[in-house]
Amino acid sequence: MPYATQPTPLDTIHHDGSARYVRPAAGAVPRLGDEITLRLRTGRRAAVQRVLLRTCPDGEQAFSELRPAGESPVCFWWEVTLRLTMPVTGYRFLIVTEEGAWWYNGLGLQQHTPTDADDFRILADYAAPAWVHRSVFYQIFPDRFADGDPASNVRDGEWEYRDMRTIARPWGEPPAQGWAGLWEFYGGDLPGIEARLDYLAETGINALYLNPIFTAYSNHRYDVADYDAVDPHLGGNAALANLRRALSAREMRYILDIVPNHCGMMHPWFLAAQADPQAPSAEYFTFHSHPVDYACWLGHPSLPKLSYRSAALREVMYAGPDAIFRRWLRPPYAADGWRIDVANMLGQQGADQLGAEIARGVRQAVKAENPQAYLMGEHFFDGTPQLQGDCWDATMNYSGFTKPLRYWLSGFALNQHNEPRVIRSPGRWPTSALVETWAGFRAAIPWTIACQQFNLLDSHDTPRIKVTLGGDPALHRLAVGIQLTYPGVPCIYYGDEIGLPLGFQPGDDPEEGARATRACMPWDREQWDQALWAFYRELIHLRRTAPALIEGGFQILAAEPDTLVYVRDTDDQQIIVVAHRGPGERPAGPVPVAHGAIADGADFIEALGGARLTTADGHLPLPALPAGITIWVH
Amino acid sequence: MPYATQPTPLDTIHHDGSARYVRPAAGAVPRLGDEITLRLRTGRRAAVQRVLLRTCPDGEQAFSELRPAGESPVCFWWEVTLRLTMPVTGYRFLIVTEEGAWWYNGLGLQQHTPTDADDFRILADYAAPAWVHRSVFYQIFPDRFADGDPASNVRDGEWEYRDMRTIARPWGEPPAQGWAGLWEFYGGDLPGIEARLDYLAETGINALYLNPIFTAYSNHRYDVADYDAVDPHLGGNAALANLRRALSAREMRYILDIVPNHCGMMHPWFLAAQADPQAPSAEYFTFHSHPVDYACWLGHPSLPKLSYRSAALREVMYAGPDAIFRRWLRPPYAADGWRIDVANMLGQQGADQLGAEIARGVRQAVKAENPQAYLMGEHFFDGTPQLQGDCWDATMNYSGFTKPLRYWLSGFALNQHNEPRVIRSPGRWPTSALVETWAGFRAAIPWTIACQQFNLLDSHDTPRIKVTLGGDPALHRLAVGIQLTYPGVPCIYYGDEIGLPLGFQPGDDPEEGARATRACMPWDREQWDQALWAFYRELIHLRRTAPALIEGGFQILAAEPDTLVYVRDTDDQQIIVVAHRGPGERPAGPVPVAHGAIADGADFIEALGGARLTTADGHLPLPALPAGITIWVH
Repeated sequence: MPYATQPTPLDTIHHDGSARYVRPAAGAVPRLGDEITLRLRTGRRAAVQRVLLRTCPDGEQAFSELRPAGESPVCFWWEVTLRLTMPVTGYRFLIVTEEGAWWYNGLGLQQHTPTDADDFRILADYAAPAWVHRSVFYQIFPDRFADGDPASNVRDGEWEYRDMRTIARPWGEPPAQGWAGLWEFYGGDLPGIEARLDYLAETGINALYLNPIFTAYSNHRYDVADYDAVDPHLGGNAALANLRRALSAREMRYILDIVPNHCGMMHPWFLAAQADPQAPSAEYFTFHSHPVDYACWLGHPSLPKLSYRSAALREVMYAGPDAIFRRWLRPPYAADGWRIDVANMLGQQGADQLGAEIARGVRQAVKAENPQAYLMGEHFFDGTPQLQGDCWDATMNYSGFTKPLRYWLSGFALNQHNEPRVIRSPGRWPTSALVETWAGFRAAIPWTIACQQFNLLDSHDTPRIKVTLGGDPALHRLAVGIQLTYPGVPCIYYGDEIGLPLGFQPGDDPEEGARATRACMPWDREQWDQALWAFYRELIHLRRTAPALIEGGFQILAAEPDTLVYVRDTDDQQIIVVAHRGPGERPAGPVPVAHGAIADGADFIEALGGARLTTADGHLPLPALPAGITIWVH
Repeated sequence: MPYATQPTPLDTIHHDGSARYVRPAAGAVPRLGDEITLRLRTGRRAAVQRVLLRTCPDGEQAFSELRPAGESPVCFWWEVTLRLTMPVTGYRFLIVTEEGAWWYNGLGLQQHTPTDADDFRILADYAAPAWVHRSVFYQIFPDRFADGDPASNVRDGEWEYRDMRTIARPWGEPPAQGWAGLWEFYGGDLPGIEARLDYLAETGINALYLNPIFTAYSNHRYDVADYDAVDPHLGGNAALANLRRALSAREMRYILDIVPNHCGMMHPWFLAAQADPQAPSAEYFTFHSHPVDYACWLGHPSLPKLSYRSAALREVMYAGPDAIFRRWLRPPYAADGWRIDVANMLGQQGADQLGAEIARGVRQAVKAENPQAYLMGEHFFDGTPQLQGDCWDATMNYSGFTKPLRYWLSGFALNQHNEPRVIRSPGRWPTSALVETWAGFRAAIPWTIACQQFNLLDSHDTPRIKVTLGGDPALHRLAVGIQLTYPGVPCIYYGDEIGLPLGFQPGDDPEEGARATRACMPWDREQWDQALWAFYRELIHLRRTAPALIEGGFQILAAEPDTLVYVRDTDDQQIIVVAHRGPGERPAGPVPVAHGAIADGADFIEALGGARLTTADGHLPLPALPAGITIWVH
């Protein structure tokens, strides 16, 4: 069997946090004191004698025996009742066979005793933003998406800032490279977004993530000058209220981008602090030597770091009754949550590592306003310590999803702010590295949160996926296919879905990549890759309607050298995703599926092309597959 | 080559937190702001092109390149300077070869991107109990070690408690089984310990851990009735002051056992709370239904759980100026630290999981009294979250040391409080499971703390190691040999060193094992296993004098099916430990050592028998070895 990796009997064991394996007593969100049922399946070939649940109530290890709970032609089911007595309950299983005992946790089976770090985890009384599970997000960089009101556009030389003058650019011209690129404005605005909601709805989008819209000086607006006002060049507060109404009419949600780690150097807080060390806002900042030497974001003096040692700042930012984090969640703006810029560094400052404390404070304030608000932090690295239920609902899942997928498709490459800017290693990542990275980052967080993770292929901060993949249409489809079938919430970066034409050939430099990244959305449909857009629409529709993709479990079925196969499953639906990265085709040949509890004789229909297959001998008999993705629905 | 596992070129890469690899600017304890040097070695066969240090200052990933820093006949050295800007700095390495890039963290090499959980970690401004590194502890269960003052002995029927009357037993009779065993007293006391300090010094012991000595009703004294008084039956406060003086005269240290998770049901706090719900101490407890139904330790009504929601309790226990945790650290008692009973459950109570908060509070109070005090928590499970520098200095290392070693020697067996009491799996653990468990628990904590971990083979709470190993003398020596050469602080349970005779044959039941565990120390030397005692003395001497064992690094060299080989190393000394569990002998044959940076032509002398070997062709040419341990010193 070409490429087929044969699973061992023990590979047939499976549990995850999805509804098939974790059954709350009532309601989707378990409460403290609830009894829930945990289920696990073992293949018929695995000679399992006993299964025990291992928990640690109040810190003391305890075991309870799982009881048999049914069987299918391919597997046995086991189950046990667990009472949730703590806000976070960690658990793993002890699997006893004739040959020995194995632990089974979020990383799978292991004979050695693991620490609790990768135990499965379930949250009680967790304020979950339930709507997120059914959302497909769309990220918009406001200056570049659509110009709804040319009268509000930034004009040439409208202001000077950091020795540069604003430049008004015609829609669609390629952005300038480097420094100059920060001062050019194309005129995109909130009325423009509102005018294009039909397009977004047609694409299947039902939630927006907007890059910063508060008043600022540069076009990315991360240099906030006023947290209390939507930039007039984007339409001002009224335009946001209008957008909210228009979104609600379509049952669409939106989240805003907030910058609590630093502000812009032109923010009145900072100007006052620079002018007078006794100013009330002086304690918001850290002056090494007043007024010129101060803590700032990664050494950029234009972005002075906010110091959360200051109780007054906490009050203004999130804790006070009308704090910034709170007020935009209220009508008429009623944002559905926040994307928190630089969440990884928030409150972290040398001796004072207050990150978790500030995140908990933000959470408390935001959830008091709206328990369904979605709190999603920017994090390029390991954000899992703040994804345990008491801090963020999610992070931008660069580490746990995006980067490993990119390494698998185009090779390992690290970008960073300091030198060396780019670190590469030859060749594409082995499939095992992709699978293990995904598994490690999933295992470190509760399943509920894994399903809220913000899975992106690219953003305003990375090269577009099309650029990274060298424009290869099959790999682009493969990447999108995985994004829309992997546990978590997909977010499509504006323009990716129509293969946004670049107008130039970006090279290897991240700066150049950034030019393509923030290019204008073309509204002349002649310029679109219509086939790609259709592919996105089909996949988004599938993602929003297939129960297995909305709330199903996840299991890797095969990790061949160039092919990855996984299943998403509910009791009623199984979806098998086959991703082949090429370059050559995967010859026709079976892939094992019985260890995914899929019986022989099951019919699968390919979601995109309509091909049909029937399982036999524990395998799915795949036809020859070129590079790309196929999605088999049962 | 029989049994020899051939390491790959990448296995030659090594770094750990020991002085050979981490060099502070000045002083043993790095301060915030210090620059330290990190060193890593790579074997000559590993085609390493670049090595980068990966840190995350204030949450943002950063890399810096390691520079070449010398070479030996077997390896290259690399180094880099790191400035410590945070209380805890996590780091790992990126190793770039022609074939790709690998991460190297506390778990070793891996191609996938790990979370930060197993990064190496270094602490700044950490109040370390530096004396611990050079200590060999001895645990004493006071009623059973030595009777120095028969006049203070508990008499038959001296009190009634829980429907049982105290029983005075003659020294040396086997303890009773089960419930009755809790009320019998043999008369051991503090003057008895003082009288035997010469014996302990002769054995090589320089630190004591005493089981509880505060006034209580049962012989184990975990049912504390008065935290302010040493039990008069042990000699009272004066005897403790005397013991302290006698210890100091021998430059010996001691730690006490404190029970902050619960008290005894006869403690005045609890009696008052039961009598009157308005009593000041009522808030120290959790009454589900006053006065009969209350929270207690694992369902034992005799041990009511203390509730750390109560600020008043925190004040009395650790926070106040004369709190219990503080006052015993002061003269004339001047304990050198605490063993914290049930540290795993302390402050953990359903919705209120205050464990870390209470531990941090205890640490703050204790270190304010004496920064060199040793805070060591009882923990049978995963205590690593509270071993990050801000809570405990150490835990009883059951999970990270004892249990995996026992599983390797005598098979996997879990004991627990609820049913099923014992869970076993057939056969002995594979060597890989031992190595991986050890590695996982080391990787989860800073090296400094790993070297403070309290490594025990047994305690008052487990069967004696002799019992567990079925009395096999070779395996007993093997276990002790590992205990005294593994990173961490060894603690010998009283009597193990002379092969304490049991007087009966304990069966499989943990209760029966407990009888042997708490048997009286015999002072008739005719009853001792003199050869075993000599073995202990030699090993303890080695442990206390060999720099490689006191402060050396640690690397597994080989994990053969029945043989484990590791090296402890400083620049000037390498010690290779070869543990063979049998049952048959390991035939003569080489074991690879070059990947441990040991060059050919190095002479090794066996510490216990005096045999000599010289390395050649990258290997140590071991002679045939029966079950047991050999320790090769260069």
